[in-house]
Amino acid sequence: MALAQITQIVGADHVWTGQLMQPFLTDWRGRYQGDALAVVRPASTAEVAAVVRCCAQHRLAIVPQGGNTSLCGAATPSQQPAIILSLQRLNRIRSIDVDNDTMVVEAGCILQTVQEAALAENRLFPLRLAAEGSCTIGGNLATNAGGTQVLRYGNTRDLVLGLEVVTPSGDIWHGLHGLRKDNSGYDLRHLFIGSEGTLGIITAATLKLYPVPVAQYTALIALHSVSAAVQLLNHCRQGFAASLTGFELMAHNCLEAVVQCFPEQRIGFTGASAQAPWYVLLELSDYESESHARERLEHILGQALEQHIALDVIMAENLTQSQALWHLRESIPLAEKVLGKSIKHDIGVPTSQVAAFVEETNALIQQAYPGVEHVIFGHLGDGNLHYNVAKGSAYSEAELLALEQRVYRIVFDQLTKYQGTISAEHGVGQLKRDWLPQYKDPVALQLMHQIKQALDPLNIMNPGKVLSQQEK
Amino acid sequence: MALAQITQIVGADHVWTGQLMQPFLTDWRGRYQGDALAVVRPASTAEVAAVVRCCAQHRLAIVPQGGNTSLCGAATPSQQPAIILSLQRLNRIRSIDVDNDTMVVEAGCILQTVQEAALAENRLFPLRLAAEGSCTIGGNLATNAGGTQVLRYGNTRDLVLGLEVVTPSGDIWHGLHGLRKDNSGYDLRHLFIGSEGTLGIITAATLKLYPVPVAQYTALIALHSVSAAVQLLNHCRQGFAASLTGFELMAHNCLEAVVQCFPEQRIGFTGASAQAPWYVLLELSDYESESHARERLEHILGQALEQHIALDVIMAENLTQSQALWHLRESIPLAEKVLGKSIKHDIGVPTSQVAAFVEETNALIQQAYPGVEHVIFGHLGDGNLHYNVAKGSAYSEAELLALEQRVYRIVFDQLTKYQGTISAEHGVGQLKRDWLPQYKDPVALQLMHQIKQALDPLNIMNPGKVLSQQEK
Repeated sequence: MALAQITQIVGADHVWTGQLMQPFLTDWRGRYQGDALAVVRPASTAEVAAVVRCCAQHRLAIVPQGGNTSLCGAATPSQQPAIILSLQRLNRIRSIDVDNDTMVVEAGCILQTVQEAALAENRLFPLRLAAEGSCTIGGNLATNAGGTQVLRYGNTRDLVLGLEVVTPSGDIWHGLHGLRKDNSGYDLRHLFIGSEGTLGIITAATLKLYPVPVAQYTALIALHSVSAAVQLLNHCRQGFAASLTGFELMAHNCLEAVVQCFPEQRIGFTGASAQAPWYVLLELSDYESESHARERLEHILGQALEQHIALDVIMAENLTQSQALWHLRESIPLAEKVLGKSIKHDIGVPTSQVAAFVEETNALIQQAYPGVEHVIFGHLGDGNLHYNVAKGSAYSEAELLALEQRVYRIVFDQLTKYQGTISAEHGVGQLKRDWLPQYKDPVALQLMHQIKQALDPLNIMNPGKVLSQQEK
Repeated sequence: MALAQITQIVGADHVWTGQLMQPFLTDWRGRYQGDALAVVRPASTAEVAAVVRCCAQHRLAIVPQGGNTSLCGAATPSQQPAIILSLQRLNRIRSIDVDNDTMVVEAGCILQTVQEAALAENRLFPLRLAAEGSCTIGGNLATNAGGTQVLRYGNTRDLVLGLEVVTPSGDIWHGLHGLRKDNSGYDLRHLFIGSEGTLGIITAATLKLYPVPVAQYTALIALHSVSAAVQLLNHCRQGFAASLTGFELMAHNCLEAVVQCFPEQRIGFTGASAQAPWYVLLELSDYESESHARERLEHILGQALEQHIALDVIMAENLTQSQALWHLRESIPLAEKVLGKSIKHDIGVPTSQVAAFVEETNALIQQAYPGVEHVIFGHLGDGNLHYNVAKGSAYSEAELLALEQRVYRIVFDQLTKYQGTISAEHGVGQLKRDWLPQYKDPVALQLMHQIKQALDPLNIMNPGKVLSQQEK
């Protein structure tokens, strides 16, 4: 009955069931398997709104899905009956206003397509993350995606001026303005961004664009400790200011794993520096010239060497070398995958606390489970680490995974101590939904429930994600 | 009865009535006069929470007030019975974390005190606006204040990582983290920021700090049109990127008024440039050196002269000259005041639309009311203009003010056409509350009402501001 109405709205070709539906029912990591009546593929905002109204009428849950690259099961159905609402056909770049440095894009645009459309107008859309070739901007918005350029440009929410949203009642909020200042009422934009589809469906957004750097330089820096890496970060923030666009931390064993899995890659250091316990990949973006960028990098990193903050430095001499350095960093998650499953965390702490957090938490985990291996890398510039725990030589994969909940507990308790977050950039989804009530401020959680109840009283918008119904 | 309880909470010395209360009952511009049972001055977040619980119990409206510098009547009581809750005694800098580039401040801190505390640690808190010597950071947060550095650092909301908030039920949300990434649930921070005290009371905030520039240069540029000013903006955005920290537009008559009112000030241009119709005040912040800043400024502005975008340029040769240029800009509102009351607008449009908006709207107003004078200045970098209308020689002050509502109508209709906003940086308060339903997207307005109802069902938090009760 509901599906018949929905079919009338979007057309029979765009209501997928059976085998066609399978790829949409499992998440990226293969942790979650859901079920749905159908995958519904509307072609326009009006069709999305009509589908939502129909679902509201029939109390049918709606799971919005973009590129299906959630790392927390946020786009996989967890309650029945449900439809998956795929935004893939809303994939137009609606407009680019070069003089306002903005573009309007539909939710289903692939992130890379957005980046390329901006570049074609000599503008930069600076969101950059591993899944950019398959994730959609709608998913980036729904999860407030982070990535590698946050220390300069902010999270996805900081790149958005306006939104178009279909509300849980099937109304359309036309909020696609390109204004850098707008104080005409509550900021609804930031409420929908990062709400993981539980408050409404973002169908389009006005994004901020930036000038394209004239030159970009990257460097790989060997360090003797996390503490030195934080010192280097502060040195670089002062020296480069807004020109510092990337600052990634990698433990030695991460790069070792990459080289082991992908023998065509190499770290580049020789001697003692090749055995340094920590490395930082740094990116400098310059608006003046190649030579100016190079001179600045040499000057500031020269100081870091003189002051013994850094052990050694490799500067990329050209674009190919620069890409090779980024490739090292980007290959870590793939190398991890090859080496076996691990217990993953997406944590955030104040940058001033990262070193103490890592040292103390490593020790606690070693004490509880001697011999597990720490696989630590991430966006140090934002205090955001992928603090992962692998089996090492002491455990089998099955033994390790059996420890998952207990390792989570140790790490999450430490995050409470260090005023950190259990989800820095990946979101909550299903993965951390039941942890949230234990670690989130109770008043914040209560406010979230009040807002959810006010905007989606039927609880049809991506139910079972972010908020648990039991805890209310 | 309620006041007796409140007196027990904060102490008799901090419940002010009668004459003591008078300065709190009128707004900065003298447009609004309110009444209150008392001005209540709690000393801590716990006292604020206890006062709110007491008010909730007695259905007593609460009007939060900081420095009482609202330009929209947002801090003046408009409904009875009410108390004014002054945050002035919550004025501690709680902590500064230099390695995390953050500081925690209480709502009652004067903005200038916050700036100075950051500077004492060699850090920049970049919010800068005319009232900084008397406004409080709590008011800046409640209104999401703008100011002159937004094109580089964003609005107040962009400078905040965490909040502490007393909710309308008197609970305390402890959200003062210093995290640059946190995706553990809905972004409540941005909901409270800019809600003008209608959803809760911000008692403290974790603010972002930035490195202090090594050098700052300002320049005054003479231009033949608004369109040329926008062209110059785009030229400078590409050339200076994040080093461009100020870009203020001023019409010739604005500077003329300043010189007339304050004869010790001078524009500095001679010949034809002294008669240019438009001027831009530009600020460049550099992290390298004085000489580098100067060289960049000469290079980029030299191009603008060669390309005939700019007519003429004055570069400040030293800090004194630089301050003199900023003083010209900052004196415009004072000069306006001396020259008589005007019809004021705080509008925002996409920067690509500013020139067309100004030209067309000026023409419409001249057509309706020939001889009124346009007094136009503001933050062109953000598309935010103070688009004011003065009596000129054709009207008396009383005649002009009688036209206010009709001039508003012309301007607001134009803003709809140009996808602009009727409040770019000052907020809604009482001044624009009844205009909002006419110009805001109806779905957005409905969502705002749903959120207000969910969080403040008793409507005790600053009632009569932002949202009208009739329109629901």
